Amino acid sequence: MRTYKLTITYDGSRYQGWQRQANTENTIQAILERSISGLVGYNVKVDGASRTDAGVHARGQVASIELSKAYDTDELLENINRYLPEDIRIADIKLVKNGFHARKDSKGKKYEYYVDCREKPDVFSRRYCYHYPVKLDIIAMKKAAEHLIGTKNLASFTDDRERVDTIRTITDIKLVPSGDKLRITVYGTGFLYHMVRIMVGTLLAVGSGDISADMMPVIIAAEDRSTAGPLAPARGLFLRKVYY
Amino acid sequence: MRTYKLTITYDGSRYQGWQRQANTENTIQAILERSISGLVGYNVKVDGASRTDAGVHARGQVASIELSKAYDTDELLENINRYLPEDIRIADIKLVKNGFHARKDSKGKKYEYYVDCREKPDVFSRRYCYHYPVKLDIIAMKKAAEHLIGTKNLASFTDDRERVDTIRTITDIKLVPSGDKLRITVYGTGFLYHMVRIMVGTLLAVGSGDISADMMPVIIAAEDRSTAGPLAPARGLFLRKVYY
Repeated sequence: MRTYKLTITYDGSRYQGWQRQANTENTIQAILERSISGLVGYNVKVDGASRTDAGVHARGQVASIELSKAYDTDELLENINRYLPEDIRIADIKLVKNGFHARKDSKGKKYEYYVDCREKPDVFSRRYCYHYPVKLDIIAMKKAAEHLIGTKNLASFTDDRERVDTIRTITDIKLVPSGDKLRITVYGTGFLYHMVRIMVGTLLAVGSGDISADMMPVIIAAEDRSTAGPLAPARGLFLRKVYY
Repeated sequence: MRTYKLTITYDGSRYQGWQRQANTENTIQAILERSISGLVGYNVKVDGASRTDAGVHARGQVASIELSKAYDTDELLENINRYLPEDIRIADIKLVKNGFHARKDSKGKKYEYYVDCREKPDVFSRRYCYHYPVKLDIIAMKKAAEHLIGTKNLASFTDDRERVDTIRTITDIKLVPSGDKLRITVYGTGFLYHMVRIMVGTLLAVGSGDISADMMPVIIAAEDRSTAGPLAPARGLFLRKVYY
C-alpha cells in the first residue's frame, strides 16, 4: 500500500459538510470516496484533517488515502478531478510516508472567516461571507480576541455538550479590516465543534457593542455555551491550511 | 402614473437570462414583474436596458417601471427586495420624469468580462469568470482591440443572422491584467446579440496566438460570423453600467 496526501479545495455551499453520513450521499468525503474508488476499482477511505460543517468552505483541506500501488501523482490528480463535481477540486497530491494520517498527524489549522459590513448584501459574494451591516469597533474586537489566545478550557465556545475534554490551544487570532470588509483568521492546534463560528459570533457581538471586551474572561471562565455570542453562519468560514 | 428607474444587480448563474419567455418562468424580468406586481396589486411591466443572456450577470442593469402612485423609494426598494430571491437585488430606485424608458433612453453601456488564466480553475470564482489557462499576449490583444473601436459594421460579431442593421459604435475597449487574471471592459452605444462575448472570444484567440492581431480588419470587413473567434462563455460577463 502507498499513502498519498491530498490538498483539497471546495465550495461547501451545496454540501452537507465533510463527513460521510448514513442518511445522505451529499457530503464531500462521500463524494471523494466514491470518485476515487470508482477510478481505482476498489474501496478507498478518505481521511480528512477537518470535519467541516455543512456550508463551510475549504481552500486547503488535507486528506490521506491508501492506494494499492504507486501512481503518477499528476495523472492521478487529473483523473480524480475529472470524476469530481466542479465545486470540489484536488489542488495537489503527494506520495508520503506510509502510515501518514491527515487528521492524527496534523499539528494545527488555520481558519479564515469573512465578514461583509457593507449596508447591502452583495449577490456575488453572498455564499462566501457573512453579511453583517454594522460599523464594527475593531479595537474592542482585538482586545477581546487577545483573551482567547493560549491554552484554555473553551467549553463556552462549543455546541458539543457531550464533550468533556474541552481544553484547546489557540495560537493566534488576526483581525484584518479592508474597507467595509473584515477577515478574522484563527490559528490553533485543535478545534471543538462550532468553535471558530462561536468565537466569530462572540467577537462580532463585541464589535457591535452587544458584549463588552472585558466580559471575555468571564465568558471563558463560565465554561457555559449560553454566555458566549451567537453561532456565526457557515458561509463565511474557510478551512485555509492544515499544518504538519 | 409615476415612472421609476431601478438599478439592479444579479447573479445570472441559475437564470434563463433577462427576457420574459413563454416557456419558462425562470427569467429575471419575469421574476421582477411577478414580485413587483404582487407587491402593488396590479400588473407592472419591467423594461430593462439590456437583454442579458442566460448565465450573464449584472452589477448595474437598469429598468424602468410605471406605478399608479408615488411611493417612498427607500421603502419600495426594501419591499421589492423582500419578495426577490437573494441572487437578484434592487440596488437603487429613483423617481424619474414620466415617460423615461430604460432601453430606449440609454446612451451607452459598459460591459466587463473576467478571464482567469491560472493553471487550475478556482472553485469560488468559477461562476464569475472564464477559466482560460493560457499565457496571453496582452500587447497583441490591445492591438487587435484597437481595430474594433469606432462606428463599424460588426456583422462578424453577432450570432443573430436575421439582423440587417449591424452597424454599431464601440467607444472604447480596455484590457486590464492583474496577475494571472484579466478584465476586458467594452464601452459602446449599442450592442448586437452575443457581440461582447464574440469580441472577447476573438481577443482571447489573438492572445493565445490562434488569430493574428493584423487579421482583425479582415475579420471586420468579412461581415461573416465564421471569420471571428468563438463565443466566450456567459459566466465571465457582467453588465456593469448603463449610461443616460
